[in-house]
Amino acid sequence: MRLISYTHDHFTRYGVLQGQGVVDMRQCMDKAPDSINDFFALASGNAALMASIAEHAAKATATPLNQVSLLPCVPRPSKIICLGVNYHDHAAEGGNKVADYPTIFFRGPSSLLAHGGTIPIPPISTSLDYEAELALVIGKTTRNVSEDQALDSVFAYACFNDATFRDYQRKTTQWTVGKNFDQTGGFGPCLVTADELPPGCVGLHIESRLNGQVMQSASTTDMVFHVAPTIAMMSACMTLEPGDVIVMGTPAGVGYARKPPVWMQPGDTIEIDIEGIGVLRNQVGLLAV
Amino acid sequence: MRLISYTHDHFTRYGVLQGQGVVDMRQCMDKAPDSINDFFALASGNAALMASIAEHAAKATATPLNQVSLLPCVPRPSKIICLGVNYHDHAAEGGNKVADYPTIFFRGPSSLLAHGGTIPIPPISTSLDYEAELALVIGKTTRNVSEDQALDSVFAYACFNDATFRDYQRKTTQWTVGKNFDQTGGFGPCLVTADELPPGCVGLHIESRLNGQVMQSASTTDMVFHVAPTIAMMSACMTLEPGDVIVMGTPAGVGYARKPPVWMQPGDTIEIDIEGIGVLRNQVGLLAV
Repeated sequence: MRLISYTHDHFTRYGVLQGQGVVDMRQCMDKAPDSINDFFALASGNAALMASIAEHAAKATATPLNQVSLLPCVPRPSKIICLGVNYHDHAAEGGNKVADYPTIFFRGPSSLLAHGGTIPIPPISTSLDYEAELALVIGKTTRNVSEDQALDSVFAYACFNDATFRDYQRKTTQWTVGKNFDQTGGFGPCLVTADELPPGCVGLHIESRLNGQVMQSASTTDMVFHVAPTIAMMSACMTLEPGDVIVMGTPAGVGYARKPPVWMQPGDTIEIDIEGIGVLRNQVGLLAV
Repeated sequence: MRLISYTHDHFTRYGVLQGQGVVDMRQCMDKAPDSINDFFALASGNAALMASIAEHAAKATATPLNQVSLLPCVPRPSKIICLGVNYHDHAAEGGNKVADYPTIFFRGPSSLLAHGGTIPIPPISTSLDYEAELALVIGKTTRNVSEDQALDSVFAYACFNDATFRDYQRKTTQWTVGKNFDQTGGFGPCLVTADELPPGCVGLHIESRLNGQVMQSASTTDMVFHVAPTIAMMSACMTLEPGDVIVMGTPAGVGYARKPPVWMQPGDTIEIDIEGIGVLRNQVGLLAV
């Protein structure tokens, strides 16, 4: 099943993709929670509910996508946990050692961007880089889970563009500010539930294209820390909550490691394409000040 | 005015401290928002509303504090922005250079702890350290604000204990995991609205005490980046939202910089005391596994 978050008539909604339209979750189940995070908690591991939702969605009249405004797949995660240096070839291109523990920073919800939206370049930086990444969404409250059980906590996957202002990432030892500019983190085009993808999304082709030109092309197999061990390690330290997002790092080919460096420019189109999930597409623009 | 968040009869509430009790905000104003974050947006800069709330609170019957369970002052901030290396003497004790830009990491809401609560030590680490810090809460949506206008965005201040598992902080270049163990970030004892404190909380005594012994003792004057410039710099990069928290860093005297290092132990009591705000008190315990 494919799910999106969106606004319609000024209300925040979420629902099931059906062809070129979306069926509001309130048409698919009784007492659909207002928040998609609460929906994850309810639907996670509940195959009967998910089957019933699919059945209702198939029979309902979908609202055409051009009548709604897409939101980031999960608009308000309580945590957005991002891995750095998590592909062997990307670690090498940046001159970084592969650590024996994931390198973690957080994003906030204000840094998220919907599929189709524009990444704004503010007046204070020009070094905007792309990073093609796999994102996963936690379905149920998870604490201290074993690696064997960890994938049960994943509700869905999506594409993520961990777009970064490199100069701000490197102003101090901590990368957080450069990773948290408004509307930089493209998250879409939709959530694909875990049952439609290989366990842990291992072995999928992942690619970024800047104005149609392939910039990154890799397999998720090349991750240093895969989905299951990452969830297990994070959950040993912090409770993962429904709607929390983990962003799994980027392969080689980013802009800063090129000679000369490639920075995204106003007018550019950046696509993140993951096999079996879809294509996340965003434009780049100048921030209106 | 002093505000707290709490649960009562299994519902999350917030209200006004009156002596040894609390008055539910629903008794103090019409249509009090369910979320304290939405309350900040409504009340920020609205002196007439705040005066009316104070008047209603003074006349109402308060619920005794021993009948409620305290929550972190703001239970679900969308961002908890933390500064590292932000007092000159603490930078020196850690052998860190003072940067020309704030060193930033984020906490998630799952890392917060109420006044009076217990910091759990999990089986995987023993290097639990305290950090006395000033926290501020953003009242209104803030983007690209000037330093002159920045303090208008602050709704209230509180004490914060940025308690850290040092070994996890240093597993990689990024500190985030060591700063995000469950229930480590004590946040209280209450919110004190900005009108009751000096602008930017400059010149206040800040202290931590471990089992009654003074471990850190400093003035907020010694911050490298003060409140107003920090808000201005952050808001140039990311939108600050009502309920977002900024935690302003810690002075010298932390446990790891002592010889031998001092780690907090089960049974310890740690207090963070800021002049004009109050005393945040937490215990340390072992995580029940």
